Amino acid sequence: MKVLLHVSHLVQWDIALSNSKNLKAIEAKSKIEIVVNAHAIQLYRELSENLLQQLNELENLNIKVKLCRNALRNNNIEESTLPATVEIVPAGIFEIIKKQEEGYYYVSP
Amino acid sequence: MKVLLHVSHLVQWDIALSNSKNLKAIEAKSKIEIVVNAHAIQLYRELSENLLQQLNELENLNIKVKLCRNALRNNNIEESTLPATVEIVPAGIFEIIKKQEEGYYYVSP
Amino acid sequence: MKVLLHVSHLVQWDIALSNSKNLKAIEAKSKIEIVVNAHAIQLYRELSENLLQQLNELENLNIKVKLCRNALRNNNIEESTLPATVEIVPAGIFEIIKKQEEGYYYVSP
Repeated sequence: MKVLLHVSHLVQWDIALSNSKNLKAIEAKSKIEIVVNAHAIQLYRELSENLLQQLNELENLNIKVKLCRNALRNNNIEESTLPATVEIVPAGIFEIIKKQEEGYYYVSP
Repeated sequence: MKVLLHVSHLVQWDIALSNSKNLKAIEAKSKIEIVVNAHAIQLYRELSENLLQQLNELENLNIKVKLCRNALRNNNIEESTLPATVEIVPAGIFEIIKKQEEGYYYVSP
Repeated sequence: MKVLLHVSHLVQWDIALSNSKNLKAIEAKSKIEIVVNAHAIQLYRELSENLLQQLNELENLNIKVKLCRNALRNNNIEESTLPATVEIVPAGIFEIIKKQEEGYYYVSP
């Protein structure tokens, strides 16, 4: 199972985390990627302890988190401030389509 | 036409109902499933007359409603309180992917 | 790349515009359609200068905007008041599935 969780609203982040863990609990080998863009990128404005812990947990589960560079710029978030556990992609929307082309199933939590 | 409507936010429930009816009006033979998880499961905390009527209507249209067991537990909703018109699935996210694998088209209302 | 952006909530409209432009900037030949239904149709209740300008911009980028007739009726919006830059479809949900059948990738901004 290959799954692309698209987080564009802040409220979707926690749901994406639950979805990821619930799916891994059933299908440990499932490949999961979370793409964050639009309003949801504001989550990365200040890196709380809670967020850093969540990102470590995701990394341990082998779940990739990808942030949209356009959204980071629009929200004046410096890439240098971001933890190594996230990846920056040129455009979230492009990544979302590319992954679907690669057979990932799309979910909007 | 096979359609999976994914309801994770309360506001999406009524839209999913409209979508279902509108699609059935055009394509009577379309197969529709509604998966409810995350915040939207709170709709099932107290079963209003309105909700029970909606569920009967969906059943008459042969539209399946599936509730996520993880979300039910997180919201302390007893499965024994739920009507026979809904089905419980171990994890909404798993159901959503499985259905897509079976050729259902995903929609987030 | 063929992309279907589904806008059912007002907050999703601006994100869909950004997504469209960001994708066109990377893949100029990508085919993009925006289907507007449910609550988001209220955007067309009064046609602001801003909205008309956005629609012209989308037309120049060869991006189609399709409005759901059911949603227009539910919101008492007269089709005669709508600009020529939008297309009316009988049901947004049907259009969304049809496009997916034609190979468009679904995104809920």
